Amino acid sequence: MPKPNVRDQLITASLATLHRKGFNATSVQDITDAAGVPKGSFYNHFASKEALGVEVVRLYSDWAARLDASVDDPALPPLERIRRGFAAKVDANVKAEFACGCLLGNFSTELSAQSEPIRQEVSASYADWAAGLQTLLVQAQREGALAADENAAELAQAMVDAWQGAVLRSKAEQSRAPLDRFMKTLDKRFLQ
Amino acid sequence: MPKPNVRDQLITASLATLHRKGFNATSVQDITDAAGVPKGSFYNHFASKEALGVEVVRLYSDWAARLDASVDDPALPPLERIRRGFAAKVDANVKAEFACGCLLGNFSTELSAQSEPIRQEVSASYADWAAGLQTLLVQAQREGALAADENAAELAQAMVDAWQGAVLRSKAEQSRAPLDRFMKTLDKRFLQ
Repeated sequence: MPKPNVRDQLITASLATLHRKGFNATSVQDITDAAGVPKGSFYNHFASKEALGVEVVRLYSDWAARLDASVDDPALPPLERIRRGFAAKVDANVKAEFACGCLLGNFSTELSAQSEPIRQEVSASYADWAAGLQTLLVQAQREGALAADENAAELAQAMVDAWQGAVLRSKAEQSRAPLDRFMKTLDKRFLQ
Repeated sequence: MPKPNVRDQLITASLATLHRKGFNATSVQDITDAAGVPKGSFYNHFASKEALGVEVVRLYSDWAARLDASVDDPALPPLERIRRGFAAKVDANVKAEFACGCLLGNFSTELSAQSEPIRQEVSASYADWAAGLQTLLVQAQREGALAADENAAELAQAMVDAWQGAVLRSKAEQSRAPLDRFMKTLDKRFLQ
């Protein structure tokens, strides 16, 4: 396996720290320590911590979209794929003991007013995510598994919003209850 | 009117800064500047920025609960009081041009893993808020305006969660669309 270059190493190694501690509480020193590279090398690869932050949002979104392979399994019914996608996110939050939440949500609240490049990347990640959900909702409508008069685009966005709120609460309460509540809301109020 | 003491002045003056910039991006100097008092005086009144943060959560929660007086008007139907309470929050976010979001949500993502005293205060604020919504939901059930088989406690919590997600998204998108979507979700999916 080729050795990852220092730039990739900085992005990968900083993800866990930025996810757990947040952007402003993480120093460049924390990042270079996590990557095991000299502090001075950071600015050879990134113009700023903000520039790294944009890349970390991208990496995180890719990771989050691939948490459960069955989400991509065309043999499964579309609503089941949606449920499994969220269930995999519930499991990841439980495993992290609610210490991290969703990086997109964290950066939304912490950085939207502080960094326009990061805000735009976060916004693009939400759009990709919602578009994927929308595709599955439309397929469910074609198959008669979801009411035909639902606005699939709006429903997909509302599900993303409600998920973000549930993760935020699970972090505040240090509890899985908000995540379990979301899964019930998903079945009872969204996917009818 | 009596002159507010310096402690109260620090709490009141720091609220807007902490709401807009977040906790870790706000220095003690920012806070004493906002309050117009010497930096050195801060530690005469608070053991730490964290101790001030707890008081700011309390002040913010009181303010948020009183955004629209009609929420407390017993002459209005309970579901209408719930709608007006959220509509007032929508207006406040639009007025702030989506730069601030909800302080409870912001601190939930930024500080839950960093400060146990602030996390506990935020959690207590959510509990108070949900309890108020629950009381109105139970009243609506008694009056036949809401299905009797709804679990009012769970529904109240789910509404708080969904609201937090909508505010977080409105900050990330710099748009009122997620807030308008929440108001529709409230009527279509929660208050049926």
